[in-house]
Amino acid sequence: MRANIKRNEQRRVVVVGGGLGGLKMVSSLRDTDYQVVLVDKNNYNQFPPLIYQVASAGLEPSNISFPFRRLFQGWKNFFFRMAEVEHIDTEEKAIRTSIGTIHYDDLVLAAGATTNFFGNKNIEASALPMKSVSEAMRLRNTILQNLERAETEDNEACRQALMNIAIVGGGPSGVEIAGALAEMKRTILPRDYPDLDTSCMRIYLINAAPRLLGAMAEKSSREAEKALKELGVEIMAGCMVTDYVDHELILKDGNHLPVETVIWVSGIRANHIDGIPADSIGRGGRIITDRFNRVKGMENVYAIGDQCLIEGDKAYPQGHPQLAQVAMQQAENLAMNLKRQDKNEQEHPFSYRNLGTMATIGRKKAVVEIGRLKFGGFFAWLLWLVVHLRSILGVRNKTIVFLNWMWSYFNYKQSLRLILKAKR
Amino acid sequence: MRANIKRNEQRRVVVVGGGLGGLKMVSSLRDTDYQVVLVDKNNYNQFPPLIYQVASAGLEPSNISFPFRRLFQGWKNFFFRMAEVEHIDTEEKAIRTSIGTIHYDDLVLAAGATTNFFGNKNIEASALPMKSVSEAMRLRNTILQNLERAETEDNEACRQALMNIAIVGGGPSGVEIAGALAEMKRTILPRDYPDLDTSCMRIYLINAAPRLLGAMAEKSSREAEKALKELGVEIMAGCMVTDYVDHELILKDGNHLPVETVIWVSGIRANHIDGIPADSIGRGGRIITDRFNRVKGMENVYAIGDQCLIEGDKAYPQGHPQLAQVAMQQAENLAMNLKRQDKNEQEHPFSYRNLGTMATIGRKKAVVEIGRLKFGGFFAWLLWLVVHLRSILGVRNKTIVFLNWMWSYFNYKQSLRLILKAKR
Repeated sequence: MRANIKRNEQRRVVVVGGGLGGLKMVSSLRDTDYQVVLVDKNNYNQFPPLIYQVASAGLEPSNISFPFRRLFQGWKNFFFRMAEVEHIDTEEKAIRTSIGTIHYDDLVLAAGATTNFFGNKNIEASALPMKSVSEAMRLRNTILQNLERAETEDNEACRQALMNIAIVGGGPSGVEIAGALAEMKRTILPRDYPDLDTSCMRIYLINAAPRLLGAMAEKSSREAEKALKELGVEIMAGCMVTDYVDHELILKDGNHLPVETVIWVSGIRANHIDGIPADSIGRGGRIITDRFNRVKGMENVYAIGDQCLIEGDKAYPQGHPQLAQVAMQQAENLAMNLKRQDKNEQEHPFSYRNLGTMATIGRKKAVVEIGRLKFGGFFAWLLWLVVHLRSILGVRNKTIVFLNWMWSYFNYKQSLRLILKAKR
Repeated sequence: MRANIKRNEQRRVVVVGGGLGGLKMVSSLRDTDYQVVLVDKNNYNQFPPLIYQVASAGLEPSNISFPFRRLFQGWKNFFFRMAEVEHIDTEEKAIRTSIGTIHYDDLVLAAGATTNFFGNKNIEASALPMKSVSEAMRLRNTILQNLERAETEDNEACRQALMNIAIVGGGPSGVEIAGALAEMKRTILPRDYPDLDTSCMRIYLINAAPRLLGAMAEKSSREAEKALKELGVEIMAGCMVTDYVDHELILKDGNHLPVETVIWVSGIRANHIDGIPADSIGRGGRIITDRFNRVKGMENVYAIGDQCLIEGDKAYPQGHPQLAQVAMQQAENLAMNLKRQDKNEQEHPFSYRNLGTMATIGRKKAVVEIGRLKFGGFFAWLLWLVVHLRSILGVRNKTIVFLNWMWSYFNYKQSLRLILKAKR
């Protein structure tokens, strides 16, 4: 097997991972004198902020996924390869992948992060993560299947557990999926399941910290909590999950929650790639870099985004938050630095500009923070909508997502409640 | 386990299968004095005429699938149950299902047909059927994965086999998928796979009969053949496939075709349900009924659509063609007859009115036959478009399918080329 990429005289930059960081990296190197290779295990880019809408049957997987090859049509000196990266060989300046060896002059690691189950095997086996489109499809299938099963379940306790949903993790993903499911419970399920008393279904949002949206201001947390409570979400703050046994979620305070659907959005861990020195791996599996995103102890190897941990930025002594914005800004800065190297110009250290944070609750509320400006409600939701529509790749996707949102805004009749599986 | 359907004084009609026939059956019994139960193994209805567009990445599964529960919101005396039917117990007037026993007063079998591999295990294991949305998703994933593999395959013969596609079966499904894939080969693949010489990719359409679209007039066959040839499809007429060994399709004339993607649309077989007397099963596994759709040798059990074979209609001595129109007309007639029984009126035997047949080739051609009127080309395609848009369930689906078609008509840039799998 061979990766089938003809070497030329150009400097070759190999980017591992086509998430928001990797994609920004390759597009920043477009029309420059580099040969660029993007390696990803999927043939599409996915848009993380809306994965929860796929899980809650509001959007279709394809609405927030975009095929790489479609994106790169007509690009020069550019190669996409669908492959799993197995190992970095710094001696040979090459990565070993499932489709063969790919040599690099510069290697950019942008493979992101995955769900962290903190070593609990029971939870890993039963809880549902929500980091990718395929995980969201599985989550949607599971919620709908459990409701179908609940409708014909004799045992009352089992029926209750099949209806209940626990969301573990009170960050933006947890808040957003809780809001979406609570709205589904109120507006769709009573009409879809007339023979099931869905009013007794319970949606728990379990957060280890004392308040939701810990990265945002207290005002935003309070607003989110109020909005979720109004929708019927039961918020359990300062509450730790220790295990999942016999269809019950076990809490540190000794309580047991009977629940068949456990959504785990409680933490992430950087994806691991073999060949990186052990002492270059920091907290959460993140790859330690300097402020130029150069991996500690490696040459011509860079890491960006969720996968990296920049040391030496006084404003962020614990490293930067694992956010899309950070990844994209790092990609832009690194691309500029590569070009500066060629021109023998001084490279610039990465410095993060926080453009604002937001989270949406249900289908017409959000909380937004831009600098000192903090606001919530309908206007915040409109802003959230515009910002996210702008970021989705492809005119077709933008149009369909927009139509979908308008549709559900006006009549709440989205019809994606399909248990869909590709046959094997 | 229990199916959880409360018995009342109403006559209960249980319908097995929510395809076009089953759905027409239950909707014809809406707002009448029956208790109606629909049982299907999926939670959605799918629209067979457009499954080939899902397989060829033109439409999304959800565009042609519609959740039953959404459809039946607010219907009275109506129950949907997602279940597999295991056995009919005529003694007890009940069906045994994966969710328990469901009693009936009248049972309507509308479970359709599945792909017939004619007993060839090698073909069954390797060839891809295209009868359901989930099969179409698998087909799309396979075609795209094989192209990714081709791009990095060293061996020229293997690379060629990975690119080639053989479609076995020259009916409407075979003609339509061949046209869609040939257009994809011409317009999309060279741009998506610049490192792969897709011009040497071969698309074979293998037909046992001497002409394509055997159920239509010779004129239509000739037009379809001409249009497909222009698109680059290699039509092999009067050609039988006998086996599939070592990535090669083996033909009766001794020839071998190296091909990794084999699409099998060569025949169907009625779905089997236990509990029907052996001598009530006819050709192709179809359940033999009289002209009132009453299953031979059973009481209060009816069969309609692809699953049934009406005996005694002089106009169709071999039974009716297995078409959506036949199934829907049978459903309407049977629903009327059930009501006539209650009113002690004379029941009407089924009689088929052929409203016309059509098949589309590529994205702007079709052949249409309505009575003696036979025409092809752009206007036929427009008619095909209107007829199919009208039949798709749901305003949202109609809108999105229409937008998709316009999109691809004007710029051929549909972007659904995703290898998407629900994680397990």
